[in-house]
Amino acid sequence: MSFIATAQSMHFAQPLALQSGASIRDYALSYETYGTLNADKSNAVLICHALNASHHVAGVYANQPRSEGWWDNMVGPGKSVDTDHFFVIGINNLGSCFGSTGPTHLNPDTGEVYGANFPVVTVEDWVDAQARLLDVLGIQQLAAVMGGSLGGMQALSWTLRYPARVRHAVVIASAPNLTAENIAFNEVARRAIVTDPDFHGGHFYAHGVVPKRGLRIARMIGHITYLSDDVMNEKFGRHLRDAAKAVQGGVAGEAAGYLFSTQEVEFQIESYLRYQGDKFAEYFDANTYLLITRALDYFDPARAYAGDLGLALAQASCKFLLVSFTTDWRFSPQRSREIVKALLRNRRNVSYAEIDAPHGHDAFLLEDARYLAEVRSYFERIAKEFA
Amino acid sequence: MSFIATAQSMHFAQPLALQSGASIRDYALSYETYGTLNADKSNAVLICHALNASHHVAGVYANQPRSEGWWDNMVGPGKSVDTDHFFVIGINNLGSCFGSTGPTHLNPDTGEVYGANFPVVTVEDWVDAQARLLDVLGIQQLAAVMGGSLGGMQALSWTLRYPARVRHAVVIASAPNLTAENIAFNEVARRAIVTDPDFHGGHFYAHGVVPKRGLRIARMIGHITYLSDDVMNEKFGRHLRDAAKAVQGGVAGEAAGYLFSTQEVEFQIESYLRYQGDKFAEYFDANTYLLITRALDYFDPARAYAGDLGLALAQASCKFLLVSFTTDWRFSPQRSREIVKALLRNRRNVSYAEIDAPHGHDAFLLEDARYLAEVRSYFERIAKEFA
Repeated sequence: MSFIATAQSMHFAQPLALQSGASIRDYALSYETYGTLNADKSNAVLICHALNASHHVAGVYANQPRSEGWWDNMVGPGKSVDTDHFFVIGINNLGSCFGSTGPTHLNPDTGEVYGANFPVVTVEDWVDAQARLLDVLGIQQLAAVMGGSLGGMQALSWTLRYPARVRHAVVIASAPNLTAENIAFNEVARRAIVTDPDFHGGHFYAHGVVPKRGLRIARMIGHITYLSDDVMNEKFGRHLRDAAKAVQGGVAGEAAGYLFSTQEVEFQIESYLRYQGDKFAEYFDANTYLLITRALDYFDPARAYAGDLGLALAQASCKFLLVSFTTDWRFSPQRSREIVKALLRNRRNVSYAEIDAPHGHDAFLLEDARYLAEVRSYFERIAKEFA
Repeated sequence: MSFIATAQSMHFAQPLALQSGASIRDYALSYETYGTLNADKSNAVLICHALNASHHVAGVYANQPRSEGWWDNMVGPGKSVDTDHFFVIGINNLGSCFGSTGPTHLNPDTGEVYGANFPVVTVEDWVDAQARLLDVLGIQQLAAVMGGSLGGMQALSWTLRYPARVRHAVVIASAPNLTAENIAFNEVARRAIVTDPDFHGGHFYAHGVVPKRGLRIARMIGHITYLSDDVMNEKFGRHLRDAAKAVQGGVAGEAAGYLFSTQEVEFQIESYLRYQGDKFAEYFDANTYLLITRALDYFDPARAYAGDLGLALAQASCKFLLVSFTTDWRFSPQRSREIVKALLRNRRNVSYAEIDAPHGHDAFLLEDARYLAEVRSYFERIAKEFA
């Protein structure tokens, strides 16, 4: 079992100006910290989360034994990001449904639940909100900012918006922007949610319903893109649902074991996806899903530089570790290499590890000896800077 | 403009036994023929269709100028499959919604619309039904059977169920079975349809509604998997919807042109997908979509041989042309090579062309000089057999 983590919350009364031109006030951010901030406050590491994660990065909650944080294999005492040396901060982003102010909360301007009226937030907005939390914690400069996938985009954005406040950025399984295919998958997921009759234009809370049908479809699509073709074949292949195995025994021919049904579960991959979809629809907020996928779509630091990523990253001054995974087809190694090249063009100090892992995009959350060792050795070097 | 095609229909009173153990009687098959059957009936080519196509392979319908068949660039006078030499048959499969008996038709046993009660049909069932049509047309042996994608699976199945009735099989952009990822995408599409409240358990006709929400999502998912990542980036990239361009002019910064909306169309890829989804939902039958994706899932000739494709294909005796496309990630070249290897293990005569095309799975329907030339030269060789 891991150490005990405690969720905290910080309230911000001052309005935060958003990229859209709107602003938000009287919001709260949930966060957790692990380890001890040193005297000169130079050992802080900020961990940014991806689509469906939260501030609960590591540890377990008291009396909730199976409540490990989403990066508990990465962060903790003696782990790759060693909380015996670093003061690690996990933070939940604005618009989320895990504690920080989001669509399920009251809009102080109207006294009603935000719902679909929650302002559209971007990666840059999240970074600005995270910077304010650091201000309150008295942390002027981060030893490192770190994240995977959408979390990696936030880490990258930190180096551009607050170059003087970051010494290292660790950007894992990420990309400088979404491809058309990435946006397409997000859009299908959003359409599934928005066209669910229980969505009610995003104000379903008032109707006492949840657009679970849409959330399930969204999650199923997501899961397919998180896994590699190979790992799906290895894990599920064309295996029939468990019940079929018994039926199948002894029966010969191609049709053996098939139910010949279009609606019942026939293959194991189907029951896996349905289970993942059902589980997700129980706890995730539909408006949050829309907001977070949109933040992914919008992120594109090169956009203001006519697509020139080298120019866009010229502002970054910190050192970088980038990691990608060979079978990740959502954010392929090629996308990480684009970032590496753009940084090298600016003569930045960049380490890059391309990990040969079978698990697709999900690999960034999983146990992989070489991956965890690469991150460990990078953080050991950072630790020497203030040792 | 192409030549004039005329749809025909053939009624079959005798029951057809299906793989599931069920049977179907009093069904009709829609078909078209192009060219002239020669005296010894040795120049017939059967074209099998994929998911959303039909018997209308080539030509246009009288007084419908933009009604070209789905493979009009491949089949016709002087084309790769030259109807000046071959008698080409296009056929619509059982369970379809384009003329042949399917879920929208009356069940003769009940006098009611089949709907969700239409029997589950397999690739093998379609091949058996096609063989019966050839019986009536007096065609004992095909010069060739040909298809792309799911149509290629039917061509492959022909060589196993009726080896003596096929001299050549042309299997394009196909696979010996679906991978777990392929099944996963089908399953998400089916869940979108089945969980649409307008589906009514598949008996929506009686309610005067159509599960358009589900059909739209299904089609959007399909479209993503038909295209390559590269061609999507080239065609749509991260371009904003057309209206945004005007707004954008002169405005600087990353946010320029963004609407900051989760539900409105922001990127061109989104409006493309929505348009494709809307169009599809207007004409395609939801029960047919379930049936055809399930036929794809079930196809697996190696299944009766413990997964040994070499053993499964030992029954085939004809010559083969296989074609795949480099950027097809739905049915990748690797899957075609599995078929090629299994045939070579059986010392069959196999030609294989891997076409370097950017368009993904869709490439099999598109103009590509090398592709069309490969098919043309193969059919020229076939034509010499009866010249």
